[in-house]
Amino acid sequence: MSVAIILGSKSDLPVAKMAVEVLRELGIAYSVHIASAHRTPHLLAELAGKSPAEVFIGIAGLSAALPGAIASHTTRPVIGVPVSGKVNLDAILSIVQMPPGIPVAAVGLDGGANAAMLAAEILALRDPALGERLLQRRRAMHERVVADGKELKDI
Amino acid sequence: MSVAIILGSKSDLPVAKMAVEVLRELGIAYSVHIASAHRTPHLLAELAGKSPAEVFIGIAGLSAALPGAIASHTTRPVIGVPVSGKVNLDAILSIVQMPPGIPVAAVGLDGGANAAMLAAEILALRDPALGERLLQRRRAMHERVVADGKELKDI
Amino acid sequence: MSVAIILGSKSDLPVAKMAVEVLRELGIAYSVHIASAHRTPHLLAELAGKSPAEVFIGIAGLSAALPGAIASHTTRPVIGVPVSGKVNLDAILSIVQMPPGIPVAAVGLDGGANAAMLAAEILALRDPALGERLLQRRRAMHERVVADGKELKDI
Amino acid sequence: MSVAIILGSKSDLPVAKMAVEVLRELGIAYSVHIASAHRTPHLLAELAGKSPAEVFIGIAGLSAALPGAIASHTTRPVIGVPVSGKVNLDAILSIVQMPPGIPVAAVGLDGGANAAMLAAEILALRDPALGERLLQRRRAMHERVVADGKELKDI
Amino acid sequence: MSVAIILGSKSDLPVAKMAVEVLRELGIAYSVHIASAHRTPHLLAELAGKSPAEVFIGIAGLSAALPGAIASHTTRPVIGVPVSGKVNLDAILSIVQMPPGIPVAAVGLDGGANAAMLAAEILALRDPALGERLLQRRRAMHERVVADGKELKDI
Amino acid sequence: MSVAIILGSKSDLPVAKMAVEVLRELGIAYSVHIASAHRTPHLLAELAGKSPAEVFIGIAGLSAALPGAIASHTTRPVIGVPVSGKVNLDAILSIVQMPPGIPVAAVGLDGGANAAMLAAEILALRDPALGERLLQRRRAMHERVVADGKELKDI
Amino acid sequence: MSVAIILGSKSDLPVAKMAVEVLRELGIAYSVHIASAHRTPHLLAELAGKSPAEVFIGIAGLSAALPGAIASHTTRPVIGVPVSGKVNLDAILSIVQMPPGIPVAAVGLDGGANAAMLAAEILALRDPALGERLLQRRRAMHERVVADGKELKDI
Amino acid sequence: MSVAIILGSKSDLPVAKMAVEVLRELGIAYSVHIASAHRTPHLLAELAGKSPAEVFIGIAGLSAALPGAIASHTTRPVIGVPVSGKVNLDAILSIVQMPPGIPVAAVGLDGGANAAMLAAEILALRDPALGERLLQRRRAMHERVVADGKELKDI
Repeated sequence: MSVAIILGSKSDLPVAKMAVEVLRELGIAYSVHIASAHRTPHLLAELAGKSPAEVFIGIAGLSAALPGAIASHTTRPVIGVPVSGKVNLDAILSIVQMPPGIPVAAVGLDGGANAAMLAAEILALRDPALGERLLQRRRAMHERVVADGKELKDI
Repeated sequence: MSVAIILGSKSDLPVAKMAVEVLRELGIAYSVHIASAHRTPHLLAELAGKSPAEVFIGIAGLSAALPGAIASHTTRPVIGVPVSGKVNLDAILSIVQMPPGIPVAAVGLDGGANAAMLAAEILALRDPALGERLLQRRRAMHERVVADGKELKDI
Repeated sequence: MSVAIILGSKSDLPVAKMAVEVLRELGIAYSVHIASAHRTPHLLAELAGKSPAEVFIGIAGLSAALPGAIASHTTRPVIGVPVSGKVNLDAILSIVQMPPGIPVAAVGLDGGANAAMLAAEILALRDPALGERLLQRRRAMHERVVADGKELKDI
Repeated sequence: MSVAIILGSKSDLPVAKMAVEVLRELGIAYSVHIASAHRTPHLLAELAGKSPAEVFIGIAGLSAALPGAIASHTTRPVIGVPVSGKVNLDAILSIVQMPPGIPVAAVGLDGGANAAMLAAEILALRDPALGERLLQRRRAMHERVVADGKELKDI
Repeated sequence: MSVAIILGSKSDLPVAKMAVEVLRELGIAYSVHIASAHRTPHLLAELAGKSPAEVFIGIAGLSAALPGAIASHTTRPVIGVPVSGKVNLDAILSIVQMPPGIPVAAVGLDGGANAAMLAAEILALRDPALGERLLQRRRAMHERVVADGKELKDI
Repeated sequence: MSVAIILGSKSDLPVAKMAVEVLRELGIAYSVHIASAHRTPHLLAELAGKSPAEVFIGIAGLSAALPGAIASHTTRPVIGVPVSGKVNLDAILSIVQMPPGIPVAAVGLDGGANAAMLAAEILALRDPALGERLLQRRRAMHERVVADGKELKDI
Repeated sequence: MSVAIILGSKSDLPVAKMAVEVLRELGIAYSVHIASAHRTPHLLAELAGKSPAEVFIGIAGLSAALPGAIASHTTRPVIGVPVSGKVNLDAILSIVQMPPGIPVAAVGLDGGANAAMLAAEILALRDPALGERLLQRRRAMHERVVADGKELKDI
Repeated sequence: MSVAIILGSKSDLPVAKMAVEVLRELGIAYSVHIASAHRTPHLLAELAGKSPAEVFIGIAGLSAALPGAIASHTTRPVIGVPVSGKVNLDAILSIVQMPPGIPVAAVGLDGGANAAMLAAEILALRDPALGERLLQRRRAMHERVVADGKELKDI
């Protein structure tokens, strides 16, 4: 059970690292690849078509065709992460507005961490122990908010 | 194994029906609910917190808080469908731009069918027969495109 | 008579401080809380449902569901402050475009000070002395503009 | 205790009627006026400066300066309603993005009903009976959502 | 010497017909194909990689990955035509904002005719007779504007 | 014959200075004022209503009501300059999208210099010597472009 | 003393008619021309360079280069009117965002009437009788608003 | 066989340099000019009308009329490059949304390199050796992506 993270280019690495951090923390196996929808379409087709990964995370900016291109080669869930730049609406809309029949699960701008969380939620449907770790993480988040709130009052 | 479709209001029914049609075709159990993030927050909390569904689809327009609100009550995958209106960027951005920690999988405007496809892809990770039906559907789409192309040449 | 300021996360504190400054200056009691619509929905529900505050100020960025979530738990006036980020239209539209039945009073991007002014205007309907302080503040603003204009001419 | 509804032009009447309907239902006194920020600034100044109304609702489209102009002449709460047209972001941003010091409470596009609800919430701080009617209205909305949901299941 | 017009789906046919009309008028050979970047990536790869066409026109709406996908399989000029829908900025930005290294020549929304004109301008660099026809067409346009102007004065 | 430059606030001074520089260079009399549409509406009304200036330049950001407010008090030409900020479309649309009957002449974001040029063009209709200076300025611009082009070739 | 109205194409005639109506009502001489910045640049250059008109009104949609092109050939005031279409921000921004040195006075989308009003305000600086007619028109507008308001109360 | 690069102003030089770099690398002759659509329309008309260049690249920001103005004077292919600024949608839409009959090939924001690549693809239709260099460049890009991916795994 693993997640394949595919970056459109080396410059998307900071967003990929946010995803990696969450996957590591949750004990989920992953692999990281660079494959451009536009510069290396065959490499991407092979990667998306043959990878044993259960879930894909595609990270790209500008006219972010990468997540959709992954989805065109697999019927496994594909999560798309728009990367911020000078326009931002370009990457967001390129990933969200997929045509009927080939879904992509878009998360927010530079949302590497949320992409990993979503992948974990999907995998947890088959892995109760992972589901439990997700619940713990959610509770920890809750407690952090409560702690932040208390700290505020102490000031 | 089932999908819970939650509509923000009765007016979102046409988009929900697109999702229902795909789920029926793929033989996936589903339930349809109306629960507003803003008008019935406790009902939504109960629905999202106690539903046995593996995957949620939240459908809403305007400031579409519904999918995020579902996600706040569950660690199961939540798919958000923005519904078109007078602005459109409102619903799209409200669903995509979730804060870190609570992911939502956004699909395109009025993308009920893609939401159902994505739910099916997620469930197929546990159900090889469903995975096979998804592949068949993908092949059928492929053939329809080819047929459309031939028809074009005959004209 | 008091105002409850609720932040979606600790990072929204600078905008909250603008609100606090104005409330202090006007002698209005207030409390500051952190409660996320997405990470701590029950905490928020409790806060919004049980707070003795007459007016709420919700401060959040991205898909800013917080003010709407507060409004879903109270029939007291809720003021929403969108916090700036990489997109900005996301927070503005998420707060302004509320569905019928659950109003939120949106102020401008990073508009913590205006949110506090609006809260004061609401509370002043019951408190003539506060109304008088608001008029004085308005006059002072007027005089500052006049002074700025004079300074300009001296240059 | 009353609400003054000010329209920028006769063409904004449909949105004003949504506000009137809610105010009538809640038993709140109101008056309706036409006064343009641009075509009749002195009329507007007089109206905003001398009206005995506790709350103002300004309704306007395009470069919707009306709510801000009302607010410039009063320290009572002013609610702004952007009216839809060919651009929509013009009216929304003109009303939301007020400069520091002169707050306007923006509601959503064509949000006449929500403007009236917000006015009612403000007035209810002084009128417990009105507050009770607001709670009943909220409960009725809740029940309508539940009824809509049941109807859905019967289909 | 020919142009290959590729549509993302049958629904893009009206825009393709504008292109066909111009190419016929200018006596340029063409072929029309349906091949979706997302539903039939291998078909598209084959079409783009093996077509003898000198210039490609890719026509698509929503997250319009089609022109970029064609460009990923050829070093011949690819012209992209965004097709109008509910958002419009999605198709425009998806086609214009290509990453460095894989250019696409974007024309305007529903700009089938301009795509064909641009293809003709490119081919005319090798075909002086076609260049002459383009100049005639330009002159005819000029005369039509002049005639329209005269007609106006007669009214 | 003079131009009145009105700033919404002291922070708009850098844009006003661009206008002043051009007016000085062209030998046009001018005055600079600070008067906010929202904070000092009566001051603005007096300024706009009684100023002997032939042309007004209104400079403002955010919901930039200032130029329209000037125009509401005079039938002399009013030029509006949107000032850049976090959103930009707010100021541009607030100034451009004036309702029928009260025109404002919008120039580009931070376009203080162009506002002054436009004012000069208007005044030159009565002042042939100024018209001549404008032509000289235009020719000088032309020569600068030519010189820049030559410099480019020398590199 | 006259105004030259230039349309980018015959399809812009409805917006031109709004301008014509106002100019006629105010007794201002005018001429109407069709000349495209893109299809007939030399015709436009001649028209803009040699016209005896004191003020130009350029009306165009899409990438609305027409008003700027007129301005490039004259130092007389040029008013630009964006014409509505599928995107709208294209025409508005193309007309407003002129580079430094060549000003255009942009009015609102489809703002033919406001363009004519602005032209009249400019010409009235030399023609006190026209100035008086403008004041009368302003008063008439004022009275119509007051009458509309009364009518409202009678209902 | 050559490419003429035309800049709207000296400030667009950094984007032009990206184009020059690619053209040099591919051994394509080029010339660089400064000619503003607005400040030097006759210079631009002469340049575009008389240049022996086969392909034009027009680089401009704001209301970027330059590429369209070049296209109005030639029937050779014109590539337009929007230059980034405070709004960005202004330059993108001004270049993409050309009216029917006068095509411009828009590339992405600051896309100097892609403009040069596109020009090379056009010229390669007549020059098989250049076509071969383009294929090599494409392969090199492919290898760089593969190398980047390997480097990633080594980390």
